[in-house]
Amino acid sequence: MSSKRSYAIIGTGALGGYYGGLMVRAGLDVHFLLRSDFDHVQQHGLRIDSKNGDFHLPRVNAYRSAAEMPACDVTIVAIKTTANEQLADILASTTRDGGVVLVLQNGLHVESDAVAVVGPDRVLGGCCFLCSNKVGPGHIDHIDYGRIAFGEYRADGSVQPIRELTRAIEADLQKASIPAEAVDDLIKVRWQKLMWNIPFNGLSVVLNASTAEIMNHPASEALAEQIIRDVRAAAMQCGKKIDEAFVDKMMDDTRAMVPYDSSMRIDFKRGRPMEVEAIVGNPLRELQRHGGHSPRLEMLYQQLTFFNRNQTV
Amino acid sequence: MSSKRSYAIIGTGALGGYYGGLMVRAGLDVHFLLRSDFDHVQQHGLRIDSKNGDFHLPRVNAYRSAAEMPACDVTIVAIKTTANEQLADILASTTRDGGVVLVLQNGLHVESDAVAVVGPDRVLGGCCFLCSNKVGPGHIDHIDYGRIAFGEYRADGSVQPIRELTRAIEADLQKASIPAEAVDDLIKVRWQKLMWNIPFNGLSVVLNASTAEIMNHPASEALAEQIIRDVRAAAMQCGKKIDEAFVDKMMDDTRAMVPYDSSMRIDFKRGRPMEVEAIVGNPLRELQRHGGHSPRLEMLYQQLTFFNRNQTV
Repeated sequence: MSSKRSYAIIGTGALGGYYGGLMVRAGLDVHFLLRSDFDHVQQHGLRIDSKNGDFHLPRVNAYRSAAEMPACDVTIVAIKTTANEQLADILASTTRDGGVVLVLQNGLHVESDAVAVVGPDRVLGGCCFLCSNKVGPGHIDHIDYGRIAFGEYRADGSVQPIRELTRAIEADLQKASIPAEAVDDLIKVRWQKLMWNIPFNGLSVVLNASTAEIMNHPASEALAEQIIRDVRAAAMQCGKKIDEAFVDKMMDDTRAMVPYDSSMRIDFKRGRPMEVEAIVGNPLRELQRHGGHSPRLEMLYQQLTFFNRNQTV
Repeated sequence: MSSKRSYAIIGTGALGGYYGGLMVRAGLDVHFLLRSDFDHVQQHGLRIDSKNGDFHLPRVNAYRSAAEMPACDVTIVAIKTTANEQLADILASTTRDGGVVLVLQNGLHVESDAVAVVGPDRVLGGCCFLCSNKVGPGHIDHIDYGRIAFGEYRADGSVQPIRELTRAIEADLQKASIPAEAVDDLIKVRWQKLMWNIPFNGLSVVLNASTAEIMNHPASEALAEQIIRDVRAAAMQCGKKIDEAFVDKMMDDTRAMVPYDSSMRIDFKRGRPMEVEAIVGNPLRELQRHGGHSPRLEMLYQQLTFFNRNQTV
């Protein structure tokens, strides 16, 4: 692998557009796959409004289809998991021999679709702690945060020593001012993020409520905390020890947030398919594979599956 | 108690208007407490459209306040439990010395408010299997069913031999063509009715769905069945044995129904307080008093409590 790695960004939205834009600005070799925004970005580039400073990239490497893209060293998957059926075709084009895929999606075992295309030893996963929105074609509004914790994916959840390539990607991202951290236990990081995503994505849809509304009523606040505890218990049953203090941290962090619509609630309101399987179904099945069960998580999953039935836009 | 008993009907709506109308037609001595419909009913009487035959009662004993009513032998409570704070004043006026109260409300231990007024040995409770609506002032549309199972209320749930007075009320109701049945185990009958009311009232609000929509999706159908099983398990833990075949009966009966909005969903849509405490909270607390717990019922209760927060009309 050359000293200057090439990156393909699959999905140039709130997440891929933001991180990719930072990487272009830092001089990295980045190639963007776009759909509806292609014409606009081809002509006007990318515009990033960020709390860390706005910037405009008048020209970026934009592509209308994966077939036109160069085979890259690292393909970053930044689409929703509900669009993962596109990945087989995309990754076959964008991933060079010996290249890797970095899956920056929410949920658990969301890397398995990439593994099915490129094989088990060439897939990394990452959790992003990012608050940003796409506010127009090629126009990203970065509100806060931005950390990425990423590491090698193994379906069995085993801890993986951090490889040289992973360190190199970490260095590239850090060069782009992205707070990136390579980790040796990706699945544990994913479970920690699920301790927020399952209760607050899930309840925001079922209760039709923002995070602030959930936290401001004792019944929903108590339910959110119980679901956080259930996710932690599920992680433990699956062999990932998470400190109990992390429960209070999730609650305190959410209380401190401005009223916030989770990504699942935004999808729900727009009639789009929600990431129910990635965020709730997969963790639940992982728990069941480990002999556990959780009536609350099952009930939340059933309710979300019901609400997902007509989300087709 | 005279051979001809006097009846006060508290709440002249879909239930009190229908049953009271049948009783007037049969020549019983019936007195109706009305609020908003008083003027209309005073002038035009009650109109009952029924699958068993329409009828009109041009003159009924209508009262604007309980203080104007005669003290009666039997006071039938047919208001929503959410209005029970009115009962203390009402029952003090309508119940003669030695008179009894028959509480025809949904839920568990809904008789306790009447007990607090008239004492523990003078309260009966009943479950109504009735499908009717108030369609205008003093105008009831009886769609189907109509059975009442009623018996003496005891807070400890003990089986009570059927007293002479209970048999006399049963005879009065039957004379009025009401399929009434005195029972010795009211609390068991209430748990059986809760096996429908908890899942289908509860999920119709949380899932924003009719009974047909709940039954027509595998996720919600499975959740409804699990909640029915949880209610049965709660009844068993509280000492009331209900045959397992009753679970399938609840599911089959609901599948056979026309698409139906539960009373709780109707209240929710209209912005009215929902009977969450009577129908879900009280059974849950009864289970907890018996050392049991149920994550699904607790979660449903928390969700409904949240949805009830702004219901104030």
